[in-house]
Amino acid sequence: MIKIDILIIGAGPTGLFTVFEAGLLKLKCHLIDALPQPGGQCSEIYPKKPIYDIPAFPEILAGDLVDNLMEQIKPFEPGFTLGERAETLDKQEDGSYIVSTNKGTQHQAPVVVIAGGLGSFEPRKPPIDNIIEFEDKGVAYMVKDPEVYRDKKVVIAGGGDSALDWAIFLTNVASEVSLVHRRNEFRGALDSVEKASELAKLGKIKLFTEAQVKKLYGDEKLEAVVIKHNDPDKGETYLEVDNFIPLFGLSPKLGPLGNWGLEIQKNAIKVNNAKDYQTNIPGVFAIGDVNTYEGKLKLILSGFHEAAVMCQYAYQIIHPNKRFVMKYTTVGGVEGFDGSKKEAKKEVVQSIV
Amino acid sequence: MIKIDILIIGAGPTGLFTVFEAGLLKLKCHLIDALPQPGGQCSEIYPKKPIYDIPAFPEILAGDLVDNLMEQIKPFEPGFTLGERAETLDKQEDGSYIVSTNKGTQHQAPVVVIAGGLGSFEPRKPPIDNIIEFEDKGVAYMVKDPEVYRDKKVVIAGGGDSALDWAIFLTNVASEVSLVHRRNEFRGALDSVEKASELAKLGKIKLFTEAQVKKLYGDEKLEAVVIKHNDPDKGETYLEVDNFIPLFGLSPKLGPLGNWGLEIQKNAIKVNNAKDYQTNIPGVFAIGDVNTYEGKLKLILSGFHEAAVMCQYAYQIIHPNKRFVMKYTTVGGVEGFDGSKKEAKKEVVQSIV
Ligand SMILES: Cc1cc2nc3c(=O)[nH]c(=O)nc-3n(C[C@H](O)[C@H](O)[C@H](O)COP(=O)(O)OP(=O)(O)OC[C@H]3O[C@@H](n4cnc5c(N)ncnc54)[C@H](O)[C@@H]3O)c2cc1C
Ligand SMILES: Cc1cc2nc3c(=O)[nH]c(=O)nc-3n(C[C@H](O)[C@H](O)[C@H](O)COP(=O)(O)OP(=O)(O)OC[C@H]3O[C@@H](n4cnc5c(N)ncnc54)[C@H](O)[C@@H]3O)c2cc1C
Repeated sequence: MIKIDILIIGAGPTGLFTVFEAGLLKLKCHLIDALPQPGGQCSEIYPKKPIYDIPAFPEILAGDLVDNLMEQIKPFEPGFTLGERAETLDKQEDGSYIVSTNKGTQHQAPVVVIAGGLGSFEPRKPPIDNIIEFEDKGVAYMVKDPEVYRDKKVVIAGGGDSALDWAIFLTNVASEVSLVHRRNEFRGALDSVEKASELAKLGKIKLFTEAQVKKLYGDEKLEAVVIKHNDPDKGETYLEVDNFIPLFGLSPKLGPLGNWGLEIQKNAIKVNNAKDYQTNIPGVFAIGDVNTYEGKLKLILSGFHEAAVMCQYAYQIIHPNKRFVMKYTTVGGVEGFDGSKKEAKKEVVQSIV
Repeated sequence: MIKIDILIIGAGPTGLFTVFEAGLLKLKCHLIDALPQPGGQCSEIYPKKPIYDIPAFPEILAGDLVDNLMEQIKPFEPGFTLGERAETLDKQEDGSYIVSTNKGTQHQAPVVVIAGGLGSFEPRKPPIDNIIEFEDKGVAYMVKDPEVYRDKKVVIAGGGDSALDWAIFLTNVASEVSLVHRRNEFRGALDSVEKASELAKLGKIKLFTEAQVKKLYGDEKLEAVVIKHNDPDKGETYLEVDNFIPLFGLSPKLGPLGNWGLEIQKNAIKVNNAKDYQTNIPGVFAIGDVNTYEGKLKLILSGFHEAAVMCQYAYQIIHPNKRFVMKYTTVGGVEGFDGSKKEAKKEVVQSIV
């Protein structure tokens, strides 16, 4: 059981910045995310695209925004349960909550913050009859740990950035990398397309375009796939493989959060924005894209402010009899849980001559 | 008369970012500030100090934050009335407002946004009987345009960063620079103290420490000051000068805004934070440090979010019959009023081999 001051569901920009604001109040956080990496939509959907409306960044790539946030919260040593979906919320007698994931990991905290964005990202699965039988037995819809594929024969399906980038990356890990795409054209960043093209020419990526994986074979675990070519003359290719990774994108689903008894409006969680961003369940807050209220803007900067306000009220729940006197970071500095301390240089007082 | 969509009182971080959010909605802004430069507290009080809680900046100097904001809003060509204090707010028959400054400059807009922070920064004046007579006749409490002092004899009073930095700067402009401070020690950034020390040794700054300017003389305009030394043996020094600039810091005063019929609470303006950050006067909003509501945090990130939300409602006032469909900047780009256009590179669609 992971016990913590604040349990955050969702490691998008909002969830990440919450760690910082909580840390200033000396509260420790742990984050759960269905994705294998932090950053939410920014990492999953548009890491290489610029955002222009983050205050004081005339331009920043979404991926860099996430990197910066990770760097900013490092002193507060957040814990992460990644690649798992928060499934259930159970109130305990002492008022705290236990949140369990689809993999059975349990987390307990007096305050739960839902920063779940548009919902947990669920993979779009290809229409292959028996694919579910092979899930976690050779089939995966995202790459959590590339080492799993060390010296394995891997087939990736898809035509976007993820498919390209992982195909490129795994050429240095797997013994064989095949890339299957139903069209002839790939859609991705220029350098990814070029690099994959080069590796294909060198034979390091076996390319099957205008083709689709149609059947999976294996006892206990995946042993082979059948690739069907669009061109009937080419027919089918039988390929012995250890792993099949279809990367057809992820689509967010509010999912289990919808069954927690939270007041839902327009597919989002209603909160009290006049005060603390608390939901109808006491001690459970909702911030960032996942919440709704009159005038809500689903922007990154909204989640930042909501996180700061929310943490003040979380503090009152966790320490009902203490009062925290807010100090500007410029004045009080930032004391990390890791013993680090950032602070402004003191002014020099000195006689001139 | 300056006519504009949104008139912003206060060019601190909140007012500046408002220009950006308004610009995305194709609304033009003009800012009034009592200070000679934009940036509010960040520029005036701690430009060289780091801030640690701006989202996605593990550390940023307050002055750099302001520079970044100026860069970000540049495409939206904000107008500025600097060094003037907004004095009066007059409702017009057509529902718009006219705001006049202490120097008589008039601005008209359908929406007025008060982003006045802790109030307009008013100089702390030294206790010299007839100083008011010489204001704008040789005496100034802040440096708006250094060229005014070209080839003049200038005496600066004060012992902090502003006094040091302007004394240093004006050695290249004025014909003579004197610096008067009532103590022997100066309090400022290390490099400023060192530089001033060097210039004093070279005789480029005439230094009077443990001394104060006590009297001013002149017909029509300032002609001389009398410096009284703490040490009675040293007595008084009579110095012929053209200009006297006492830099004893500025202290913010809500000032004239307090007489506009706004609902004031805890020396701040009450707003409806559950919706639009509007004040009790329709069409007049208050955002950033200057407003108050339950749970308000006087942090820079609060003003950013409040600005974004507020602009959506300002749009409804200015264009009651239009609907603006918000697009992510990443998706829609940023179109400046200056004809500039920022946008994300389109994805490449390309066949690999
Ligand atoms: C193409 C595109 C361009 C954009 N451009 C801009 C822009 O220019 N400016 C701007 O401000 N915004 C932009 N946005 C929106 C911005 O990305 C979102 O506002 C932001 O990501 C919201 O952050 P969040 O942390 O609230 O949620 P998210 O980023 O959605 O993160 C939520 C996380 O919670 C996880 N999660 C949800 N439910 C569960 C569960 N039950 N268990 C485990 N994990 C769960 C999800 O997997 C996800 O990782 C853009 C979005 C897109 C898609
Ligand atoms: C030493 C110090 C350290 C700080 N550290 C941090 C930190 O680490 N993090 C953080 O988030 N915040 C910090 N702050 C607070 C932060 O600076 C403020 O929250 C921020 O400046 C508020 O921005 P604003 O634009 O709302 O107001 P301000 O920055 O106060 O700007 C308001 C402007 O309005 C002008 N004005 C007011 N009335 C009038 C009028 N009638 N006519 C013309 N002009 C007018 C003023 O001259 C001023 O320039 C710190 C503040 C100080 C002093």
